[in-house]
Amino acid sequence: VREALGAGAVVDLFGTIEGYGRARDLVEAAQAAGVGVWPITEHGLATLTDTVTPQGIVAVCRHLHHTDLRAVVDPGNERHRFADEGPRLVVVLASVADPGNAGTVLRTADAAGASAVVFTEGSVDPYNGKCVRASAGSLFHVDIVRGGTTGETVRTLRAAGLTMLAADAHGPVDLDEYADAGGLSARTAWLFGSEAHGLPTGVADIADARVKVATYGLAESLNLAAAAAVCLYASARAHHRPGAVHPAAVREAPS
Amino acid sequence: VREALGAGAVVDLFGTIEGYGRARDLVEAAQAAGVGVWPITEHGLATLTDTVTPQGIVAVCRHLHHTDLRAVVDPGNERHRFADEGPRLVVVLASVADPGNAGTVLRTADAAGASAVVFTEGSVDPYNGKCVRASAGSLFHVDIVRGGTTGETVRTLRAAGLTMLAADAHGPVDLDEYADAGGLSARTAWLFGSEAHGLPTGVADIADARVKVATYGLAESLNLAAAAAVCLYASARAHHRPGAVHPAAVREAPS
Repeated sequence: VREALGAGAVVDLFGTIEGYGRARDLVEAAQAAGVGVWPITEHGLATLTDTVTPQGIVAVCRHLHHTDLRAVVDPGNERHRFADEGPRLVVVLASVADPGNAGTVLRTADAAGASAVVFTEGSVDPYNGKCVRASAGSLFHVDIVRGGTTGETVRTLRAAGLTMLAADAHGPVDLDEYADAGGLSARTAWLFGSEAHGLPTGVADIADARVKVATYGLAESLNLAAAAAVCLYASARAHHRPGAVHPAAVREAPS
Repeated sequence: VREALGAGAVVDLFGTIEGYGRARDLVEAAQAAGVGVWPITEHGLATLTDTVTPQGIVAVCRHLHHTDLRAVVDPGNERHRFADEGPRLVVVLASVADPGNAGTVLRTADAAGASAVVFTEGSVDPYNGKCVRASAGSLFHVDIVRGGTTGETVRTLRAAGLTMLAADAHGPVDLDEYADAGGLSARTAWLFGSEAHGLPTGVADIADARVKVATYGLAESLNLAAAAAVCLYASARAHHRPGAVHPAAVREAPS
Protein backbone atom coordinates (compact mmCIF):
# COMPACT_ATOMS: atom_id res chain seq x y z
CA VAL A 1 0.00 0.00 0.00
CA ARG A 2 2.92 2.31 0.79
CA GLU A 3 4.41 1.74 -2.69
CA ALA A 4 1.01 2.21 -4.35
CA LEU A 5 0.56 5.52 -2.51
CA GLY A 6 4.03 6.60 -3.60
CA ALA A 7 3.11 5.82 -7.20
CA GLY A 8 -0.13 7.84 -7.01
CA ALA A 9 -2.23 4.78 -7.69
CA VAL A 10 -4.47 4.81 -4.59
CA VAL A 11 -8.06 6.05 -4.86
CA ASP A 12 -9.41 5.06 -1.43
CA LEU A 13 -8.06 3.51 1.75
CA PHE A 14 -10.15 1.20 3.98
CA GLY A 15 -8.82 0.02 7.33
CA THR A 16 -9.61 -1.10 10.84
CA ILE A 17 -8.71 1.05 13.85
CA GLU A 18 -5.95 -1.43 14.66
CA GLY A 19 -4.68 -1.43 11.08
CA TYR A 20 -4.49 2.34 10.91
CA GLY A 21 -2.90 2.42 14.38
CA ARG A 22 -0.02 0.29 13.14
CA ALA A 23 0.62 2.52 10.11
CA ARG A 24 -0.01 6.13 11.03
CA ASP A 25 2.47 7.32 8.39
CA LEU A 26 0.30 5.70 5.70
CA VAL A 27 -2.78 7.54 6.92
CA GLU A 28 -0.92 10.85 6.92
CA ALA A 29 0.52 10.24 3.45
CA ALA A 30 -2.91 9.29 2.12
CA GLN A 31 -4.58 12.38 3.60
CA ALA A 32 -1.81 14.61 2.24
CA ALA A 33 -2.42 13.10 -1.19
CA GLY A 34 -6.18 13.73 -1.04
CA VAL A 35 -6.96 10.02 -0.80
CA GLY A 36 -10.13 9.03 1.07
CA VAL A 37 -9.35 7.30 4.38
CA TRP A 38 -12.32 5.23 5.59
CA PRO A 39 -12.75 3.26 8.82
CA ILE A 40 -14.09 -0.25 8.46
CA THR A 41 -14.85 -3.24 10.69
CA GLU A 42 -12.89 -6.52 10.67
CA HIS A 43 -15.90 -8.13 9.01
CA GLY A 44 -16.09 -5.41 6.37
CA LEU A 45 -12.37 -5.76 5.71
CA ALA A 46 -12.76 -9.51 5.19
CA THR A 47 -15.34 -8.87 2.46
CA LEU A 48 -12.88 -6.59 0.61
CA THR A 49 -9.91 -8.97 0.51
CA ASP A 50 -9.21 -12.53 -0.55
CA THR A 51 -6.48 -13.08 2.04
CA VAL A 52 -7.16 -15.29 5.06
CA THR A 53 -5.38 -12.97 7.48
CA PRO A 54 -5.60 -9.43 6.07
CA GLN A 55 -3.16 -6.92 7.52
CA GLY A 56 -5.76 -4.31 8.48
CA ILE A 57 -5.60 -1.90 5.54
CA VAL A 58 -6.89 -2.26 1.98
CA ALA A 59 -6.26 0.23 -0.83
CA VAL A 60 -8.48 0.61 -3.87
CA CYS A 61 -6.15 1.47 -6.76
CA ARG A 62 -6.43 2.58 -10.34
CA HIS A 63 -4.54 0.76 -13.07
CA LEU A 64 -1.41 2.80 -13.57
CA HIS A 65 0.32 2.04 -16.79
CA HIS A 66 0.10 -0.10 -19.88
CA THR A 67 3.60 0.43 -21.17
CA ASP A 68 4.20 -0.38 -24.82
CA LEU A 69 7.17 -2.62 -25.52
CA ARG A 70 8.54 0.07 -27.85
CA ALA A 71 8.73 2.47 -24.91
CA VAL A 72 10.65 -0.13 -22.93
CA VAL A 73 13.40 -0.39 -25.55
CA ASP A 74 13.56 3.41 -26.01
CA PRO A 75 17.03 4.51 -24.80
CA GLY A 76 15.48 7.67 -23.34
CA ASN A 77 13.25 5.75 -20.91
CA GLU A 78 13.99 7.00 -17.40
CA ARG A 79 13.47 3.55 -15.85
CA HIS A 80 16.83 2.37 -17.17
CA ARG A 81 19.58 2.03 -14.63
CA PHE A 82 22.29 2.92 -17.14
CA ALA A 83 21.92 6.07 -19.23
CA ASP A 84 21.99 6.35 -23.02
CA GLU A 85 22.01 2.71 -23.96
CA GLY A 86 18.48 1.37 -23.61
CA PRO A 87 17.46 -1.27 -21.10
CA ARG A 88 20.22 -3.47 -19.70
CA LEU A 89 17.96 -6.08 -18.09
CA VAL A 90 14.40 -7.05 -19.09
CA VAL A 91 12.29 -10.01 -17.93
CA VAL A 92 9.71 -11.77 -20.10
CA LEU A 93 7.12 -14.02 -18.46
CA ALA A 94 6.04 -16.35 -21.28
CA SER A 95 2.55 -17.66 -20.45
CA VAL A 96 3.25 -17.78 -16.70
CA ALA A 97 -0.19 -18.36 -15.21
CA ASP A 98 0.67 -18.78 -11.54
CA PRO A 99 0.17 -15.41 -9.78
CA GLY A 100 2.48 -16.14 -6.84
CA ASN A 101 5.35 -17.13 -9.12
CA ALA A 102 4.76 -14.15 -11.42
CA GLY A 103 4.66 -11.67 -8.53
CA THR A 104 7.78 -13.13 -6.94
CA VAL A 105 9.70 -12.95 -10.23
CA LEU A 106 8.52 -9.34 -10.61
CA ARG A 107 9.92 -8.49 -7.16
CA THR A 108 13.20 -10.28 -7.92
CA ALA A 109 13.48 -8.54 -11.31
CA ASP A 110 13.14 -5.17 -9.58
CA ALA A 111 15.75 -6.13 -6.97
CA ALA A 112 18.18 -7.30 -9.66
CA GLY A 113 17.89 -3.97 -11.48
CA ALA A 114 15.56 -4.85 -14.36
CA SER A 115 13.74 -1.93 -15.96
CA ALA A 116 10.73 -3.84 -17.30
CA VAL A 117 8.74 -7.05 -16.94
CA VAL A 118 6.66 -8.27 -19.89
CA PHE A 119 3.57 -10.42 -19.21
CA THR A 120 2.90 -12.09 -22.58
CA GLU A 121 -0.44 -13.44 -23.76
CA GLY A 122 -1.47 -16.35 -21.56
CA SER A 123 0.28 -14.95 -18.51
CA VAL A 124 -1.59 -14.02 -15.34
CA ASP A 125 -3.02 -10.49 -15.03
CA PRO A 126 -0.31 -8.49 -13.19
CA TYR A 127 -3.17 -6.87 -11.21
CA ASN A 128 -4.26 -10.27 -9.86
CA GLY A 129 -4.40 -9.78 -6.08
CA LYS A 130 -1.99 -12.59 -5.30
CA CYS A 131 0.47 -11.33 -7.92
CA VAL A 132 0.26 -7.78 -6.55
CA ARG A 133 0.92 -8.96 -2.99
CA ALA A 134 3.79 -11.25 -4.04
CA SER A 135 5.38 -8.34 -5.91
CA ALA A 136 5.60 -6.43 -2.59
CA GLY A 137 5.35 -3.06 -4.33
CA SER A 138 7.62 -3.86 -7.28
CA LEU A 139 4.56 -3.64 -9.55
CA PHE A 140 5.02 0.13 -9.10
CA HIS A 141 8.81 0.16 -9.59
CA VAL A 142 9.35 -1.22 -13.10
CA ASP A 143 7.64 -0.86 -16.45
CA ILE A 144 4.91 -3.46 -16.88
CA VAL A 145 4.07 -4.56 -20.42
CA ARG A 146 0.95 -6.67 -21.02
CA GLY A 147 -0.05 -8.82 -23.97
CA GLY A 148 1.64 -9.63 -27.24
CA THR A 149 2.80 -13.10 -28.09
CA THR A 150 6.09 -14.38 -26.77
CA GLY A 151 7.39 -14.58 -30.35
CA GLU A 152 6.60 -10.91 -31.09
CA THR A 153 8.16 -9.89 -27.78
CA VAL A 154 11.37 -11.80 -28.44
CA ARG A 155 11.69 -10.32 -31.93
CA THR A 156 11.20 -6.75 -30.68
CA LEU A 157 13.71 -7.12 -27.86
CA ARG A 158 16.33 -8.75 -30.09
CA ALA A 159 15.83 -6.04 -32.74
CA ALA A 160 16.59 -3.51 -29.98
CA GLY A 161 19.94 -5.17 -29.38
CA LEU A 162 19.22 -7.30 -26.33
CA THR A 163 20.65 -10.77 -26.00
CA MET A 164 17.71 -13.13 -25.48
CA LEU A 165 18.34 -15.89 -22.95
CA ALA A 166 15.72 -18.58 -22.33
CA ALA A 167 15.85 -20.26 -18.91
CA ASP A 168 15.44 -23.95 -19.64
CA ALA A 169 16.10 -26.81 -17.20
CA HIS A 170 17.12 -28.93 -20.21
CA GLY A 171 19.10 -26.21 -21.99
CA PRO A 172 22.57 -26.96 -23.39
CA VAL A 173 24.29 -23.90 -21.87
CA ASP A 174 25.34 -23.86 -18.20
CA LEU A 175 24.60 -20.53 -16.48
CA ASP A 176 27.89 -20.36 -14.56
CA GLU A 177 29.98 -21.21 -17.62
CA TYR A 178 28.11 -18.62 -19.67
CA ALA A 179 28.66 -16.02 -16.93
CA ASP A 180 32.34 -16.92 -16.53
CA ALA A 181 32.83 -16.52 -20.29
CA GLY A 182 31.50 -12.95 -20.01
CA GLY A 183 28.20 -13.58 -21.80
CA LEU A 184 26.10 -11.86 -19.15
CA SER A 185 27.82 -8.49 -19.52
CA ALA A 186 25.64 -7.88 -22.58
CA ARG A 187 22.26 -6.14 -22.39
CA THR A 188 20.00 -9.09 -21.67
CA ALA A 189 16.35 -10.15 -21.75
CA TRP A 190 15.56 -13.27 -19.74
CA LEU A 191 12.67 -15.45 -20.84
CA PHE A 192 10.89 -17.60 -18.23
CA GLY A 193 8.13 -20.08 -19.05
CA SER A 194 5.54 -21.70 -16.81
CA GLU A 195 6.75 -24.43 -14.51
CA ALA A 196 4.00 -26.79 -15.65
CA HIS A 197 4.40 -26.34 -19.41
CA GLY A 198 7.88 -24.88 -19.93
CA LEU A 199 8.57 -22.44 -22.72
CA PRO A 200 6.02 -22.15 -25.55
CA THR A 201 6.86 -24.35 -28.53
CA GLY A 202 9.42 -22.80 -30.87
CA VAL A 203 10.27 -19.93 -28.55
CA ALA A 204 13.43 -21.47 -27.15
CA ASP A 205 14.69 -21.83 -30.72
CA ILE A 206 14.56 -18.08 -31.42
CA ALA A 207 16.46 -17.21 -28.24
CA ASP A 208 20.21 -16.62 -28.43
CA ALA A 209 20.81 -19.38 -25.88
CA ARG A 210 18.89 -21.87 -23.77
CA VAL A 211 20.49 -21.64 -20.34
CA LYS A 212 20.14 -24.09 -17.48
CA VAL A 213 20.87 -23.69 -13.77
CA ALA A 214 22.99 -26.69 -12.73
CA THR A 215 21.70 -28.92 -9.94
CA TYR A 216 24.15 -30.62 -7.59
CA GLY A 217 21.81 -32.77 -5.49
CA LEU A 218 18.95 -35.05 -6.50
CA ALA A 219 16.43 -32.33 -7.42
CA GLU A 220 15.84 -32.30 -11.17
CA SER A 221 15.21 -28.56 -11.33
CA LEU A 222 14.40 -25.42 -9.38
CA ASN A 223 10.98 -23.88 -9.11
CA LEU A 224 10.35 -20.92 -11.42
CA ALA A 225 10.88 -18.19 -8.83
CA ALA A 226 14.10 -19.75 -7.51
CA ALA A 227 15.53 -20.33 -11.01
CA ALA A 228 14.68 -16.73 -11.94
CA ALA A 229 16.44 -15.47 -8.79
CA VAL A 230 19.63 -17.36 -9.68
CA CYS A 231 19.57 -16.23 -13.33
CA LEU A 232 18.69 -12.59 -12.65
CA TYR A 233 21.29 -12.24 -9.90
CA ALA A 234 23.92 -13.73 -12.20
CA SER A 235 23.05 -10.90 -14.60
CA ALA A 236 23.06 -8.34 -11.78
CA ARG A 237 26.56 -9.41 -10.76
CA ALA A 238 27.78 -9.12 -14.34
CA HIS A 239 26.22 -5.66 -14.72
CA HIS A 240 27.00 -4.14 -11.34
CA ARG A 241 30.27 -5.83 -10.37
CA PRO A 242 32.36 -5.47 -13.53
CA GLY A 243 35.51 -5.95 -11.39
CA ALA A 244 34.72 -9.63 -11.04
CA VAL A 245 37.06 -11.15 -13.60
CA HIS A 246 36.29 -14.47 -15.26
CA PRO A 247 38.37 -17.63 -14.79
CA ALA A 248 39.18 -17.70 -18.51
CA ALA A 249 40.90 -14.34 -18.12
CA VAL A 250 42.78 -15.60 -15.08
CA ARG A 251 44.13 -18.65 -16.88
CA GLU A 252 45.54 -16.39 -19.59
CA ALA A 253 47.46 -14.26 -17.08
CA PRO A 254 51.12 -15.22 -16.57
CA SER A 255 51.72 -17.09 -13.33
CA VAL B 1 4.72 -39.46 -5.80
CA ARG B 2 7.54 -40.91 -7.89
CA GLU B 3 10.16 -39.68 -5.41
CA ALA B 4 8.11 -40.96 -2.46
CA LEU B 5 7.89 -44.40 -4.11
CA GLY B 6 11.63 -44.36 -4.69
CA ALA B 7 12.17 -43.60 -1.02
CA GLY B 8 9.93 -46.48 0.08
CA ALA B 9 7.51 -44.11 1.80
CA VAL B 10 4.28 -45.00 -0.03
CA VAL B 11 1.68 -47.21 1.69
CA ASP B 12 -1.24 -46.91 -0.76
CA LEU B 13 -1.92 -45.26 -4.10
CA PHE B 14 -5.33 -43.83 -5.06
CA GLY B 15 -5.96 -42.56 -8.58
CA THR B 16 -8.49 -41.99 -11.33
CA ILE B 17 -8.40 -44.00 -14.55
CA GLU B 18 -7.09 -40.90 -16.33
CA GLY B 19 -4.45 -40.27 -13.66
CA TYR B 20 -3.12 -43.82 -13.82
CA GLY B 21 -3.23 -43.69 -17.63
CA ARG B 22 -0.85 -40.74 -17.63
CA ALA B 23 1.65 -42.45 -15.31
CA ARG B 24 1.75 -46.16 -16.09
CA ASP B 25 5.35 -46.38 -14.85
CA LEU B 26 4.18 -45.25 -11.40
CA VAL B 27 1.56 -47.99 -11.27
CA GLU B 28 4.09 -50.62 -12.27
CA ALA B 29 6.65 -49.36 -9.75
CA ALA B 30 4.02 -49.36 -6.99
CA GLN B 31 2.86 -52.89 -7.80
CA ALA B 32 6.45 -54.12 -7.91
CA ALA B 33 6.97 -52.60 -4.47
CA GLY B 34 3.88 -54.28 -3.04
CA VAL B 35 2.02 -50.98 -2.67
CA GLY B 36 -1.78 -51.09 -2.93
CA VAL B 37 -3.05 -49.44 -6.13
CA TRP B 38 -6.70 -48.43 -5.81
CA PRO B 39 -9.02 -46.91 -8.43
CA ILE B 40 -11.02 -43.90 -7.30
CA THR B 41 -13.51 -41.43 -8.80
CA GLU B 42 -12.77 -37.74 -9.43
CA HIS B 43 -15.08 -36.95 -6.53
CA GLY B 44 -13.32 -39.40 -4.25
CA LEU B 45 -9.96 -37.94 -5.23
CA ALA B 46 -11.17 -34.44 -4.37
CA THR B 47 -12.00 -35.57 -0.83
CA LEU B 48 -8.45 -36.92 -0.37
CA THR B 49 -6.55 -33.78 -1.42
CA ASP B 50 -6.53 -30.11 -0.54
CA THR B 51 -5.46 -28.96 -4.04
CA VAL B 52 -7.98 -27.27 -6.31
CA THR B 53 -6.83 -29.17 -9.40
CA PRO B 54 -5.39 -32.51 -8.25
CA GLN B 55 -3.21 -34.32 -10.77
CA GLY B 56 -5.10 -37.63 -10.68
CA ILE B 57 -3.00 -39.66 -8.24
CA VAL B 58 -2.67 -39.43 -4.47
CA ALA B 59 -0.19 -41.41 -2.37
CA VAL B 60 -0.69 -42.20 1.30
CA CYS B 61 2.79 -42.15 2.85
CA ARG B 62 4.39 -43.06 6.14
CA HIS B 63 6.66 -40.57 7.88
CA LEU B 64 10.14 -41.60 6.86
CA HIS B 65 12.78 -40.13 9.07
CA HIS B 66 13.31 -37.95 12.07
CA THR B 67 17.01 -37.39 11.69
CA ASP B 68 18.85 -36.18 14.76
CA LEU B 69 21.08 -33.17 14.24
CA ARG B 70 24.02 -35.18 15.58
CA ALA B 71 23.60 -37.64 12.70
CA VAL B 72 23.65 -34.72 10.26
CA VAL B 73 27.05 -33.53 11.46
CA ASP B 74 28.46 -37.09 11.56
CA PRO B 75 31.24 -37.23 8.92
CA GLY B 76 30.17 -40.81 8.06
CA ASN B 77 26.67 -39.76 6.94
CA GLU B 78 26.15 -40.98 3.38
CA ARG B 79 24.04 -37.95 2.43
CA HIS B 80 27.15 -35.76 2.25
CA ARG B 81 28.32 -34.85 -1.21
CA PHE B 82 31.97 -34.76 -0.17
CA ALA B 83 33.45 -37.72 1.68
CA ASP B 84 35.22 -37.73 5.05
CA GLU B 85 34.62 -34.16 6.10
CA GLY B 86 31.06 -33.90 7.39
CA PRO B 87 28.36 -31.83 5.75
CA ARG B 88 29.49 -29.05 3.45
CA LEU B 89 26.11 -27.29 3.12
CA VAL B 90 23.23 -27.31 5.63
CA VAL B 91 20.09 -25.15 5.68
CA VAL B 92 18.32 -24.03 8.86
CA LEU B 93 14.75 -22.74 8.65
CA ALA B 94 14.37 -20.62 11.79
CA SER B 95 10.66 -20.41 12.63
CA VAL B 96 9.61 -20.37 8.97
CA ALA B 97 5.85 -20.89 9.15
CA ASP B 98 4.89 -20.49 5.49
CA PRO B 99 4.66 -23.98 3.92
CA GLY B 100 5.15 -22.82 0.33
CA ASN B 101 8.31 -20.91 1.19
CA ALA B 102 9.67 -23.76 3.33
CA GLY B 103 9.03 -26.36 0.61
CA THR B 104 10.60 -24.18 -2.07
CA VAL B 105 13.72 -23.59 0.06
CA LEU B 106 13.90 -27.34 0.68
CA ARG B 107 13.84 -28.00 -3.09
CA THR B 108 16.47 -25.31 -3.70
CA ALA B 109 18.66 -26.66 -0.88
CA ASP B 110 18.60 -30.10 -2.52
CA ALA B 111 19.42 -28.61 -5.93
CA ALA B 112 22.33 -26.63 -4.48
CA GLY B 113 23.82 -29.78 -2.93
CA ALA B 114 22.82 -29.40 0.72
CA SER B 115 22.77 -32.60 2.74
CA ALA B 116 20.23 -31.54 5.39
CA VAL B 117 17.47 -29.06 6.13
CA VAL B 118 16.60 -28.26 9.75
CA PHE B 119 13.06 -27.14 10.62
CA THR B 120 13.46 -25.51 14.05
CA GLU B 121 10.72 -25.09 16.64
CA GLY B 122 8.06 -22.75 15.28
CA SER B 123 8.65 -23.79 11.68
CA VAL B 124 5.94 -25.43 9.60
CA ASP B 125 5.60 -29.23 9.70
CA PRO B 126 7.70 -30.50 6.75
CA TYR B 127 4.86 -33.00 6.08
CA ASN B 128 2.36 -30.16 5.57
CA GLY B 129 0.75 -30.92 2.19
CA LYS B 130 1.69 -27.60 0.63
CA CYS B 131 5.28 -27.93 1.86
CA VAL B 132 5.52 -31.47 0.48
CA ARG B 133 4.21 -30.40 -2.93
CA ALA B 134 6.47 -27.31 -3.07
CA SER B 135 9.47 -29.51 -2.26
CA ALA B 136 8.77 -31.51 -5.47
CA GLY B 137 10.27 -34.68 -4.02
CA SER B 138 13.25 -33.07 -2.29
CA LEU B 139 11.67 -34.00 1.07
CA PHE B 140 12.94 -37.50 0.23
CA HIS B 141 16.40 -36.42 -0.99
CA VAL B 142 17.98 -34.71 2.02
CA ASP B 143 18.07 -35.33 5.76
CA ILE B 144 15.19 -33.59 7.51
CA VAL B 145 15.68 -32.52 11.13
CA ARG B 146 12.67 -31.36 13.14
CA GLY B 147 12.47 -29.39 16.36
CA GLY B 148 15.08 -27.90 18.64
CA THR B 149 15.45 -24.20 19.12
CA THR B 150 17.34 -22.13 16.60
CA GLY B 151 19.95 -21.32 19.26
CA GLU B 152 20.63 -25.00 20.02
CA THR B 153 20.83 -25.77 16.32
CA VAL B 154 23.32 -22.98 15.65
CA ARG B 155 25.52 -24.06 18.57
CA THR B 156 25.58 -27.71 17.43
CA LEU B 157 26.42 -26.83 13.82
CA ARG B 158 29.16 -24.39 14.82
CA ALA B 159 30.62 -26.94 17.23
CA ALA B 160 30.81 -29.34 14.25
CA GLY B 161 32.96 -26.83 12.40
CA LEU B 162 30.41 -25.23 10.07
CA THR B 163 30.51 -21.51 9.38
CA MET B 164 27.10 -20.12 10.33
CA LEU B 165 25.76 -17.47 7.95
CA ALA B 166 22.48 -15.69 8.70
CA ALA B 167 20.65 -14.27 5.69
CA ASP B 168 19.58 -10.80 6.76
CA ALA B 169 18.28 -8.05 4.46
CA HIS B 170 19.85 -5.53 6.86
CA GLY B 171 23.09 -7.46 7.43
CA PRO B 172 26.46 -5.65 7.24
CA VAL B 173 28.14 -8.20 4.94
CA ASP B 174 27.48 -8.19 1.18
CA LEU B 175 27.02 -11.70 -0.26
CA ASP B 176 29.06 -11.06 -3.43
CA GLU B 177 31.93 -9.45 -1.53
CA TYR B 178 31.95 -12.33 0.95
CA ALA B 179 31.97 -14.85 -1.92
CA ASP B 180 34.68 -12.97 -3.81
CA ALA B 181 36.85 -12.98 -0.68
CA GLY B 182 36.58 -16.77 -0.59
CA GLY B 183 34.38 -16.97 2.51
CA LEU B 184 31.93 -19.40 0.92
CA SER B 185 34.50 -22.13 0.29
CA ALA B 186 34.13 -23.12 3.96
CA ARG B 187 31.65 -25.73 5.13
CA THR B 188 28.56 -23.59 5.66
CA ALA B 189 25.18 -23.62 7.38
CA TRP B 190 22.75 -20.99 6.11
CA LEU B 191 20.12 -19.64 8.49
CA PHE B 192 16.87 -18.27 7.05
CA GLY B 193 14.15 -16.61 9.13
CA SER B 194 10.51 -15.96 8.34
CA GLU B 195 9.76 -13.17 5.92
CA ALA B 196 7.24 -11.62 8.29
CA HIS B 197 9.31 -11.69 11.47
CA GLY B 198 12.93 -12.08 10.32
CA LEU B 199 15.44 -13.99 12.40
CA PRO B 200 14.54 -14.80 16.02
CA THR B 201 15.94 -12.25 18.49
CA GLY B 202 19.57 -12.83 19.36
CA VAL B 203 20.10 -15.51 16.74
CA ALA B 204 21.77 -13.25 14.22
CA ASP B 205 24.29 -12.31 16.91
CA ILE B 206 25.54 -15.87 17.35
CA ALA B 207 26.06 -16.39 13.61
CA ASP B 208 29.52 -15.89 12.12
CA ALA B 209 28.16 -13.24 9.75
CA ARG B 210 24.89 -11.55 8.85
CA VAL B 211 24.86 -11.55 5.07
CA LYS B 212 22.64 -9.48 2.77
CA VAL B 213 21.77 -9.92 -0.89
CA ALA B 214 22.28 -6.52 -2.54
CA THR B 215 19.33 -4.93 -4.34
CA TYR B 216 19.93 -2.77 -7.39
CA GLY B 217 16.41 -1.51 -8.14
CA LEU B 218 13.76 -0.07 -5.83
CA ALA B 219 12.75 -3.32 -4.10
CA GLU B 220 13.90 -3.29 -0.48
CA SER B 221 14.48 -7.03 -0.31
CA LEU B 222 13.83 -10.38 -1.93
CA ASN B 223 11.24 -12.85 -0.78
CA LEU B 224 12.53 -15.69 1.36
CA ALA B 225 12.64 -18.34 -1.37
CA ALA B 226 14.38 -16.01 -3.84
CA ALA B 227 16.95 -14.83 -1.27
CA ALA B 228 17.65 -18.44 -0.31
CA ALA B 229 18.15 -19.35 -3.97
CA VAL B 230 20.73 -16.59 -4.43
CA CYS B 231 22.57 -17.45 -1.19
CA LEU B 232 22.57 -21.23 -1.67
CA TYR B 233 23.69 -20.99 -5.29
CA ALA B 234 26.52 -18.68 -4.27
CA SER B 235 27.62 -21.48 -1.90
CA ALA B 236 27.12 -24.11 -4.62
CA ARG B 237 29.38 -22.16 -6.98
CA ALA B 238 32.07 -21.87 -4.30
CA HIS B 239 31.88 -25.60 -3.52
CA HIS B 240 31.50 -27.06 -7.00
CA ARG B 241 33.41 -24.62 -9.19
CA PRO B 242 36.69 -24.19 -7.32
CA GLY B 243 38.29 -23.05 -10.59
CA ALA B 244 36.40 -19.76 -10.32
CA VAL B 245 39.12 -17.47 -8.99
CA HIS B 246 38.25 -14.44 -6.89
CA PRO B 247 38.89 -10.85 -8.04
CA ALA B 248 41.29 -10.36 -5.13
CA ALA B 249 43.49 -13.12 -6.55
CA VAL B 250 43.26 -11.59 -10.01
CA ARG B 251 44.38 -8.18 -8.85
CA GLU B 252 47.50 -9.76 -7.36
CA ALA B 253 48.47 -11.41 -10.65
CA PRO B 254 51.01 -9.49 -12.78
CA SER B 255 49.43 -7.80 -15.79
